Amino acid sequence: MRYPNGKTYQKKDNVEQKKESAHRTLLSAANRGMSLEEDINLSNDYYRDAGIALINKRPTPINIVKVDYSKGARITDAYFEKQSTTDYNGVYKGRYIDFEAKNTKSTTSFPLSNISEHQIVHLKNVLKHGGIAFFIISFQMKDEIYLLDASFVIDFYEHGKRKSIPYEVFTKEGILIKQDYSPRLHYLDAVEALYFK
Amino acid sequence: MRYPNGKTYQKKDNVEQKKESAHRTLLSAANRGMSLEEDINLSNDYYRDAGIALINKRPTPINIVKVDYSKGARITDAYFEKQSTTDYNGVYKGRYIDFEAKNTKSTTSFPLSNISEHQIVHLKNVLKHGGIAFFIISFQMKDEIYLLDASFVIDFYEHGKRKSIPYEVFTKEGILIKQDYSPRLHYLDAVEALYFK
Repeated sequence: MRYPNGKTYQKKDNVEQKKESAHRTLLSAANRGMSLEEDINLSNDYYRDAGIALINKRPTPINIVKVDYSKGARITDAYFEKQSTTDYNGVYKGRYIDFEAKNTKSTTSFPLSNISEHQIVHLKNVLKHGGIAFFIISFQMKDEIYLLDASFVIDFYEHGKRKSIPYEVFTKEGILIKQDYSPRLHYLDAVEALYFK
Repeated sequence: MRYPNGKTYQKKDNVEQKKESAHRTLLSAANRGMSLEEDINLSNDYYRDAGIALINKRPTPINIVKVDYSKGARITDAYFEKQSTTDYNGVYKGRYIDFEAKNTKSTTSFPLSNISEHQIVHLKNVLKHGGIAFFIISFQMKDEIYLLDASFVIDFYEHGKRKSIPYEVFTKEGILIKQDYSPRLHYLDAVEALYFK
């Protein structure tokens, strides 16, 4: 069967599409076992080792109740504290970088329910002092990860009618982060495009 | 008994000296109960609330071995991990700030034994990326706290013959931090003088 615009091209496109699809599946499969946090940590290792930036995850704050010194300072009772800041901060080209990373299974919006008031206050302070503040949001079902400036999140948190940010805000105002092997997430390309161009 | 240069002045000086001494003892007493860490944390609270800077203590990294979820995520076994970065970082006037604070009972030098190789690597990276990196060192017996740029510490760590930094390096190259009530430590005045003038 022949098509007006040429069978060969059509076939090639299909092959290309299949290749892309396979590559995408491979990436997705590779990512499935990995969390967004692990992807960011690995990317930060890459950026540090390549001399590009120094960005670290803040340790989870833990309230220690009991320590057994007979066992060499073994913690025997403690509980998780709520993070009052964000998960990541560091330095890139002399500028202070601060961000929070979150997943969502929603395909239509990012719900603000898992962002705390404390974090909003913290990010407002970062912006006030001239730092770069943003969110990295992974739309897991779409296999798309966006970087969005914190000001949008703050604005939706404080003035939004719905307790979520529509997906379209990310595609329009955010930057799609390239997913790869090393670094896993080229998120500093997005930072470069948004804050240094 | 009369002195050539006037009894009255001598007496006034004594009173002033006693006042200063009393004030100093009061400050020392107030500080004695407080650790350097607490003083810095309180100063950071002050700087944050006054809208001057946003600097936080990184939580102590803890390796969690066992969590009892029946008790609502209670940690029942964990141990302290070595801090591979520094204790404090944040943003001041858009610049990235990173520092470590240490006490010493020595009056002649600051021993480098409680600084890890990891921290030196971290601070070298901070400087490489254009961040501001320093140490806050408290000479407890002298009741003097100095801010010293990280480059001196790195240099002594890597090229020093003795495993310590002489006190004179602090008085000559560092900045004496004013101790007060609020903020406890005016350490950003020292930062201002050293990096922004």
